[in-house]
Amino acid sequence: MSLVVVGSIAFDSVKTPFGERERMLGGAAVHFSLAASFFTDVRVVGPVGDDFGDEQYEVLHGRGVITDDVEHVDGGQTFFWKAHYEYDMNVAHTEDTQLGVFGEFEPKLSEDSRNAGNLFLANIQPDVQRGVREQCTGARFAGLDSMNLWIDTARDSLVKTIGGVDLVFLNDAEIRMLTEQPNLVRAAREIMDMGPSVVVAKQGEYGAALFTQDGFFALPAFPLDTVTDPTGAGDSFAGGFLGYLAAQDDWQDDAALRRAMTYGSVLASFNVEEFGTERVARLTSDEIDERFERFREITALEAAPA
Amino acid sequence: MSLVVVGSIAFDSVKTPFGERERMLGGAAVHFSLAASFFTDVRVVGPVGDDFGDEQYEVLHGRGVITDDVEHVDGGQTFFWKAHYEYDMNVAHTEDTQLGVFGEFEPKLSEDSRNAGNLFLANIQPDVQRGVREQCTGARFAGLDSMNLWIDTARDSLVKTIGGVDLVFLNDAEIRMLTEQPNLVRAAREIMDMGPSVVVAKQGEYGAALFTQDGFFALPAFPLDTVTDPTGAGDSFAGGFLGYLAAQDDWQDDAALRRAMTYGSVLASFNVEEFGTERVARLTSDEIDERFERFREITALEAAPA
Repeated sequence: MSLVVVGSIAFDSVKTPFGERERMLGGAAVHFSLAASFFTDVRVVGPVGDDFGDEQYEVLHGRGVITDDVEHVDGGQTFFWKAHYEYDMNVAHTEDTQLGVFGEFEPKLSEDSRNAGNLFLANIQPDVQRGVREQCTGARFAGLDSMNLWIDTARDSLVKTIGGVDLVFLNDAEIRMLTEQPNLVRAAREIMDMGPSVVVAKQGEYGAALFTQDGFFALPAFPLDTVTDPTGAGDSFAGGFLGYLAAQDDWQDDAALRRAMTYGSVLASFNVEEFGTERVARLTSDEIDERFERFREITALEAAPA
Repeated sequence: MSLVVVGSIAFDSVKTPFGERERMLGGAAVHFSLAASFFTDVRVVGPVGDDFGDEQYEVLHGRGVITDDVEHVDGGQTFFWKAHYEYDMNVAHTEDTQLGVFGEFEPKLSEDSRNAGNLFLANIQPDVQRGVREQCTGARFAGLDSMNLWIDTARDSLVKTIGGVDLVFLNDAEIRMLTEQPNLVRAAREIMDMGPSVVVAKQGEYGAALFTQDGFFALPAFPLDTVTDPTGAGDSFAGGFLGYLAAQDDWQDDAALRRAMTYGSVLASFNVEEFGTERVARLTSDEIDERFERFREITALEAAPA
């Protein structure tokens, strides 16, 4: 089944200890849709300005992403983000943010997108996310990402929006912050009490944990000896996860959710190997399958001999 | 084969959001030996003062730990540590440390301890650790723990000591600090270049990662909805790990090392459920086996259907 993602499309200028790039294609919806494109048909919804052109579309089309609902705002500028990372890659140091056309974004979904089988709400103001969720009446499942800013400034709206989705992707600090509960197991349960049946705690270099009503699964991050640029890792993770899940008959099956965690981790691990979308744009399904098997190897645990 | 541990024996006064205890039995060598005692014969080597008596020995003897090499220093006081934890249990806030007899500790191992099959050097000054390693000429393997203090103040000695052991247990911040290498995979490799064939990165609430010459394995921490007192978790982990390994014919076997990681995690998870040694002191082998199986369940990852 198809998957529609609503969120930011951006230009990112990023400097890390391993190099720098100016105005690379980026944004949550871009990283998500490229990752998800390996598993299902993906439609991306987000605003761009006059500075967004063929070169950027080619990256998306190169992976078969459907861009009919990319909204071109005449005279506008695409969302721009500039940041650097120190050796501790867990923290991005933002130097500049220019919202541009993203600041006034009011998603208007085409009929095809409204009828998409599954939905992902990338990190946007929670009122806007809820509006999109209400447009996509037919979606089998909806996933959501958010951030500390909205927990701080729009908590009630975020809780209401979470009440209308099935899967929540947050990092563990955000899960604790939203629930004011320091224990992650209890905090995840409190988020499930708001409505969702699945909570995914993103843990950066430590991997991710999956909480469901009666299940738990955790997966380490892939051990890389070079992380070139962590930008978009979380969105690539969500894209691999939900792209895989959108293609399954029973998306709530425990084994399918565990594989979704793994495909998410596979896509995130490739994403950070190079700058921006460079690595994922030329990734192959064979490479994905190979790394999935590597994940099975590095987590395999035999029973104790009797 | 038997296992000897050299390290601190202590009284701990600890306050956490879930309660407090005064002068509980504690110390690295105590937590280690109780955890290891489920798998093999354990001898504990460390100094105590006049305040250490039958009540404390009973906890150790209750688990069959051999205390012949506990050194009673007449007129001395046992190592005392006082700390509290906030809701973020990853950080202990030390309020008082009184080294007592531990400050002058010069381990003198009995012939039985010198001939022990395997050795663990709990966190002590690295010169002292090296002296013990040299006394235990027959040990099949030696493991070591250390801390940021020694990396700061006795780095050269620590590197030399690491050169004489087989397994290193450090938290990931310490691994990075020791090698001045921010990438954990590279940092672990640099420690292996110093001599050891196994590096275990302890990652607190995120579990632990195992690095060997050509292997990698990672295991999440057990998902607990209450962590009552994290004191001794790292030593319980090392005790479960090396206790299991000491009982194996081939301690370098990859599957055995992965099971050792899991038994370590099992023991650490029980240790933090209650204060001090309370939980592990009354733990049963059946409970350990059950939680080992739970670890297999929460990490199980099926292949993708063809």
